[in-house]
Amino acid sequence: MAHSETTRIIGIDPGLRRTGWGLVESVGNSLRFIASGTVRSDGDSDLASRLCQLHDGLSDVLHSHSPHEAAVEATFVNKDATATLKLGQARGIAMLVPALAGLAVAEYAPNAVKKAVIGVGHGDKKQIHMMVKVLMPKAQFDTDDAADALAIAICHAHHRQSAAGRLRLAAKAGAA
Amino acid sequence: MAHSETTRIIGIDPGLRRTGWGLVESVGNSLRFIASGTVRSDGDSDLASRLCQLHDGLSDVLHSHSPHEAAVEATFVNKDATATLKLGQARGIAMLVPALAGLAVAEYAPNAVKKAVIGVGHGDKKQIHMMVKVLMPKAQFDTDDAADALAIAICHAHHRQSAAGRLRLAAKAGAA
Repeated sequence: MAHSETTRIIGIDPGLRRTGWGLVESVGNSLRFIASGTVRSDGDSDLASRLCQLHDGLSDVLHSHSPHEAAVEATFVNKDATATLKLGQARGIAMLVPALAGLAVAEYAPNAVKKAVIGVGHGDKKQIHMMVKVLMPKAQFDTDDAADALAIAICHAHHRQSAAGRLRLAAKAGAA
Repeated sequence: MAHSETTRIIGIDPGLRRTGWGLVESVGNSLRFIASGTVRSDGDSDLASRLCQLHDGLSDVLHSHSPHEAAVEATFVNKDATATLKLGQARGIAMLVPALAGLAVAEYAPNAVKKAVIGVGHGDKKQIHMMVKVLMPKAQFDTDDAADALAIAICHAHHRQSAAGRLRLAAKAGAA
């Protein structure tokens, strides 16, 4: 029988104004909601200060909750280059903070997140939020960004589990 | 007579593959070359690791040279959204590292940098490099990115000096 270790995963939905985060624990086949929230940056501050605010907020979350692995949405990109650059800057911080803490950081495209949570690669925010609630009835989130971050964490839990399943099958095949 | 304090400025030209940096000292009206270089990230690593490499490299430069102020090029943006997102991520790190160290981080558009260095808002890389050499004959740089970073530092030195000049004039006018 497979060993059921507990893995605590942080999902992050990066944005310069609001970066959502969501923590789940994956034990065997089950998922448990731990916490979620939103790190905000002050639109009146200069860009460097705003990036510091995101850095400090995410660092606090990591220190408080000590996740083992991180997953960040690989968001593309409306056609507006200025918005893309802004998102990129926030995303840089969202990837850097867990990596500096020694966590592996996975990336998932939005349609992979949707597929993991609602079963198909398309769907609106409402459907995602509903399914987050179905999969983890105790889940709470204060913003859309926090809900999306939980969806990203769930997506990572599913992917790492199927990878582990494949490894177990391969080991069995090797032993046979 | 105006007080001539020494200000050490780091200019940064961000890029995911290569981030150039250049340090100059501004004393009164004169500029002095201190150092320059290029922080590289390993194209075979994952994105989070590459952002860590940029973070660590720039942090080392700040620790070694203790600049007082930072300036980063506000690069826009070819039409390729993927490239823009990559640049944004690197740029996030380039702004974050000096800001975390408590430095003010100024941003200059490419045409402002060109205007400060070659006198007009357009011109090619060759002209910029030549003028960096004219303005600071001892300047050395190992890559185009390091040369561009020195140009950004020079641009910031000029701008902060004209701002100081305006302040001195205003103070004189106030005293008269």
